[in-house]
Amino acid sequence: MEINLDDIIQPTLLINQNICHNNIENMVGKAHRHGIELRPHFKTHQSALIGSWFKAKGVKAIATSSFDMALYFANHGWDDITVAFPVNVREMIKINELAKKIDLQLLVESKEQIIALREGLNHCVHVYIKIDTGYGRTGLLPSAKEEINQLIQAMKDTEMMKFEGFLSHSGHTYEVKGERAINAIHRDALAKLKALKETYQSQFPNLRLSLGDTPSASVSDFFGEIDELRPGNFVFYDLKQYQIGSCNVDQIAVAAVCPIVAIHHHRQEFVIYGGAVHLSKDFIVDEHFGKHHGLIVPLTAQGWGPPLRSCYVKSLSQEHGIVKMDVQYMDQYKVGDLIAILPAHSCLVMDKIRNVMTLNGENVPKMGTTIQ
Amino acid sequence: MEINLDDIIQPTLLINQNICHNNIENMVGKAHRHGIELRPHFKTHQSALIGSWFKAKGVKAIATSSFDMALYFANHGWDDITVAFPVNVREMIKINELAKKIDLQLLVESKEQIIALREGLNHCVHVYIKIDTGYGRTGLLPSAKEEINQLIQAMKDTEMMKFEGFLSHSGHTYEVKGERAINAIHRDALAKLKALKETYQSQFPNLRLSLGDTPSASVSDFFGEIDELRPGNFVFYDLKQYQIGSCNVDQIAVAAVCPIVAIHHHRQEFVIYGGAVHLSKDFIVDEHFGKHHGLIVPLTAQGWGPPLRSCYVKSLSQEHGIVKMDVQYMDQYKVGDLIAILPAHSCLVMDKIRNVMTLNGENVPKMGTTIQ
Repeated sequence: MEINLDDIIQPTLLINQNICHNNIENMVGKAHRHGIELRPHFKTHQSALIGSWFKAKGVKAIATSSFDMALYFANHGWDDITVAFPVNVREMIKINELAKKIDLQLLVESKEQIIALREGLNHCVHVYIKIDTGYGRTGLLPSAKEEINQLIQAMKDTEMMKFEGFLSHSGHTYEVKGERAINAIHRDALAKLKALKETYQSQFPNLRLSLGDTPSASVSDFFGEIDELRPGNFVFYDLKQYQIGSCNVDQIAVAAVCPIVAIHHHRQEFVIYGGAVHLSKDFIVDEHFGKHHGLIVPLTAQGWGPPLRSCYVKSLSQEHGIVKMDVQYMDQYKVGDLIAILPAHSCLVMDKIRNVMTLNGENVPKMGTTIQ
Repeated sequence: MEINLDDIIQPTLLINQNICHNNIENMVGKAHRHGIELRPHFKTHQSALIGSWFKAKGVKAIATSSFDMALYFANHGWDDITVAFPVNVREMIKINELAKKIDLQLLVESKEQIIALREGLNHCVHVYIKIDTGYGRTGLLPSAKEEINQLIQAMKDTEMMKFEGFLSHSGHTYEVKGERAINAIHRDALAKLKALKETYQSQFPNLRLSLGDTPSASVSDFFGEIDELRPGNFVFYDLKQYQIGSCNVDQIAVAAVCPIVAIHHHRQEFVIYGGAVHLSKDFIVDEHFGKHHGLIVPLTAQGWGPPLRSCYVKSLSQEHGIVKMDVQYMDQYKVGDLIAILPAHSCLVMDKIRNVMTLNGENVPKMGTTIQ
């Protein structure tokens, strides 16, 4: 490890760039084998540098979760972006700014959105209709043919909107465990999207299907009629994905490193400088430790090793974390040392934490946070 | 309301400055009546502007939860700051930078911290010993006389550290409800701190006691031997404080305003642009709705009204929120409208959300977030 741990004075996210490169390469390879386009979701990392790692592997198109994030990546050379979020019609100025300079794909699921776009657009955009294949968050149900027809019809009245196809996110794969359960959801989503394609293909011969979630993209090896795949989390993975069965522990590419500020021997607990403002309040529920925010890993010359038995982040307040330690490791740490944490969910940690660096010691810039 | 709602295009925290002024005035008045110093914790707002509202009411000393936050406020004219967090000895450069220009109070609870300070300090600091009066997060137990004596002894060897007294935070008031339960915790903390004062006062006649948490500072009307009070959340309050019994709903000074991006009539749900990156994943558990992230309030000419019956934020993912609506209010909103949310916890929302403004339409600067 070329990073100097003495330089780390505050909560810092370490990124193992080699693991990231492998995670990207695996997913690029899988998409290529299946003849589908990989459009990775960049909300996970929000970083121009990490974006460049995807570009180096031949990725040309991306997804973001906001127009701001799309503008950030457009300013870093990405020219084909899907904002994978139902259009917020209050941001028409940004939509036009983006549509002017890049290939912009938008998501709609209501007539109000189409009407607002029809009135507000000065430049052409591609439009997907968001389909709810079972997650129950956003999108029209595949059975809602009347509403789908209305949206398609409403787009026909203007040259500014090109109906591109159907897009879905099987977020309910996050709620199950194991290949069989993930594949059951994935098969169901594929079948629903295929049926939609069959219904509308005669009318729209170039109609595209877009699907993406890290569990099914990682575990499944069949993608039906899908034209593009939009997983995001796989670049880092995390304990949640490990728990679901999407990855091995050694595929997790990020660890949060935090200074120990107090040691309580009688409670077998460390207090760390590292709280909800760094790690988010996100948690997983573990069969052994119940609800927790991450597992402790030892820092090594190569980065970090596998989790220490029975050591985890028990609770987080605004800036404090409480780490529960197994008695056998208590004496290996002292106040002022660093402790490393495999996070429950990597996306929110990356969003929150201010300091991010690779194991080479390279600072990782992201959309983000500066001290004023 | 002078704010133009059409200008709000993204998740935005509205601050009712009149409610803030009243909340500050109430706490300043209470401290004054009891002859104790108010040292508000500024982690709640992290804003130079809101800091100036405290200054206008005569507040001269503050607490922060990090050295970065202390530097931010030192750069905005505050010259008496307690970093109410166990000293992170890896930040010695910042500690000296602060100690050089302001009255800096630090917290210690271990010999390692004293040793690091003794070796690293170039300027004088005041040092409190952190006491755990029952919360169980940080601090020495009041009974740990031997350790306390060791810390005091270790400070005597250097002129750079002045032992100031004992500091505690009764964070366990957040886990109870009602005046009686809050006061029981508060009385216990006061008694423990008083006993410490009696033990060490002959040796340190100017020894000070510092205590602070919003529930007891709001509800209690007795402060024993306490010299200073350090509540933070009271400037905004939130649903958690309302649930505890620290405030009324109309004392909550912040509401997050988010665009509606989808309406699902069959589920009686709205999808909003407003997720964990804006509101945090923090939640309260409500006797009616279970776990939720906030209550919906109507926007009015004066700001917002009391919560709408049975309307709440059911879940949050990275950028999406799902709002459960009562059927009677469903037709009052359409896609593209704004919806206002009283947050579960105000501190983390203020920390996360990028756009913050007063009801006057004034932008509220904070330590923080810019798009690069």
